[in-house]
Amino acid sequence: MTLETDLLAALRGIATDPAARGLMDDAAVLADLVVTHDMIVEGVHFLPEDPPQDIAWKLVAVNLSDLAAKGAQPLGVLTGMGLRQDAAWNAAFIEGLSIALADLGVPLLGGDTVAMPAGAPRTLGLTAIGRAAGPVPSRMGGDVGDGLYVAGVIGDAGLGLAIAQGQIKGPASLLAAYRRPRPLVEMGRALAGQVTAMMDISDGLLIDAMRLAEASGAGLSIDLDAIPMSAAALQFGSDRAARLRAATAGDDYALLFTSALPLRNLPSRPHRIGQLVRQPGLHLHDSDGPVPLPDRLGWLHQG
Amino acid sequence: MTLETDLLAALRGIATDPAARGLMDDAAVLADLVVTHDMIVEGVHFLPEDPPQDIAWKLVAVNLSDLAAKGAQPLGVLTGMGLRQDAAWNAAFIEGLSIALADLGVPLLGGDTVAMPAGAPRTLGLTAIGRAAGPVPSRMGGDVGDGLYVAGVIGDAGLGLAIAQGQIKGPASLLAAYRRPRPLVEMGRALAGQVTAMMDISDGLLIDAMRLAEASGAGLSIDLDAIPMSAAALQFGSDRAARLRAATAGDDYALLFTSALPLRNLPSRPHRIGQLVRQPGLHLHDSDGPVPLPDRLGWLHQG
Repeated sequence: MTLETDLLAALRGIATDPAARGLMDDAAVLADLVVTHDMIVEGVHFLPEDPPQDIAWKLVAVNLSDLAAKGAQPLGVLTGMGLRQDAAWNAAFIEGLSIALADLGVPLLGGDTVAMPAGAPRTLGLTAIGRAAGPVPSRMGGDVGDGLYVAGVIGDAGLGLAIAQGQIKGPASLLAAYRRPRPLVEMGRALAGQVTAMMDISDGLLIDAMRLAEASGAGLSIDLDAIPMSAAALQFGSDRAARLRAATAGDDYALLFTSALPLRNLPSRPHRIGQLVRQPGLHLHDSDGPVPLPDRLGWLHQG
Repeated sequence: MTLETDLLAALRGIATDPAARGLMDDAAVLADLVVTHDMIVEGVHFLPEDPPQDIAWKLVAVNLSDLAAKGAQPLGVLTGMGLRQDAAWNAAFIEGLSIALADLGVPLLGGDTVAMPAGAPRTLGLTAIGRAAGPVPSRMGGDVGDGLYVAGVIGDAGLGLAIAQGQIKGPASLLAAYRRPRPLVEMGRALAGQVTAMMDISDGLLIDAMRLAEASGAGLSIDLDAIPMSAAALQFGSDRAARLRAATAGDDYALLFTSALPLRNLPSRPHRIGQLVRQPGLHLHDSDGPVPLPDRLGWLHQG
């Protein structure tokens, strides 16, 4: 939420219940329940010509990714859909919603559907409710010295966006990473009891890692060469520039976490990319030495 | 949700989990949790010139009213706000949200805020989460022979709307009933174990009573003279025409329920206005005999 700093400050003034976590986290935690609500708006978060099925998938996936980062098992979702009188688009969107919910194994519980005024942008919200089996990690719990890890890969979705925009040609797996990201729900559940802090990576590895470090009151050091990239992504380059592109591209929906423990019993092996340090700020390096910070660390949404 | 019948049918095809109640009810029920999400859109459900504080109040109230009808104690809300870059309006809206949540005793847990594209209508959603202490009434449980009751009064909000539109002059209590309805949360909790079916009255007593009867597979008989009206509303008439206006005006956020039991331990006394009957459809009467049905039973929103 970056509409206005004043607005967020005002909302934080209202959200004083501990369950709200000061609106500093990606979900609210109410006893063992984890609840999140994200919105996407036509012309801001997606384009009128994007396939409606993929928009529906993404609406589900981005919210389930927030649950994954809290180690919560999804119980169900409610939709809030502001649609237009466009039967073909609406049917395709509902089809996509059906596919995403069935594929990701989450029931639709209810919600509201309203007709937007003529010409108004489609405005789509989704509330996801999950249950945590144990501790619910926040962004705030990291300590200096903790290892910084990524579960999943970084950069596939950014290349997928470039393919979708016709800027490059590439394999279907990269386009799918952009169009139909798979939230790491199982991984999140397996990690929840072993991490000091966790969040999902949605705006870009570097910017989200900065947010985790700042929320935890620490600086961070990242080894660019340790960032996990897929074989398909590495076809487009593995040098410093390519790795910086991946680390700032966004839409990965991987998990970022800190831990001081040896990690056990996970569905796959996360990658250690650095650690939290005492010196504030982000310190990048690779095998050639220190790396100057790029101008842009990731996406700063207007909303 | 009346955007398109096909769309609702498609959504019902997806929402097969029992917690969704076939999307026939006003809230989802997940073990002891009751969850609802309602949206309001500028130009559809409210006007640009409406006071932002009152819009915020209503957004909260309509969702808590859905919880009240399920006998649930509100645990908290998440907002999904599509706003414009209008700091004064946004601040007034947040102020209204703060007032409503404090006054109604419900914490803000989280949510999302996005900037709508220039000129797009403000689109406001709210998810309310509650906990039920016992059985969760649906619209569907009424039986032929059950008494039909209203808790609260009918018609104040309709007169309040006419005052807001400058059509009539009247006391502040009527305007407040329209601008700042108070969901009957305590009454709903006290009633939940004593009713066969319950819902809140949002679109008009007659249309909502028809919905309850149809969902319960029954017809219904209503005595117009038994409809509870406030002293302030009765100043504008108590004859058949005035009572029909009240019964079709909408925005009451009273509770409508059926019961076969003597009612006990309630914060105030509900009014018996009729009963469920075998003969399908709505049968109106008053002390002068049968009353022909008005052309319009209430509001049919486009969304």
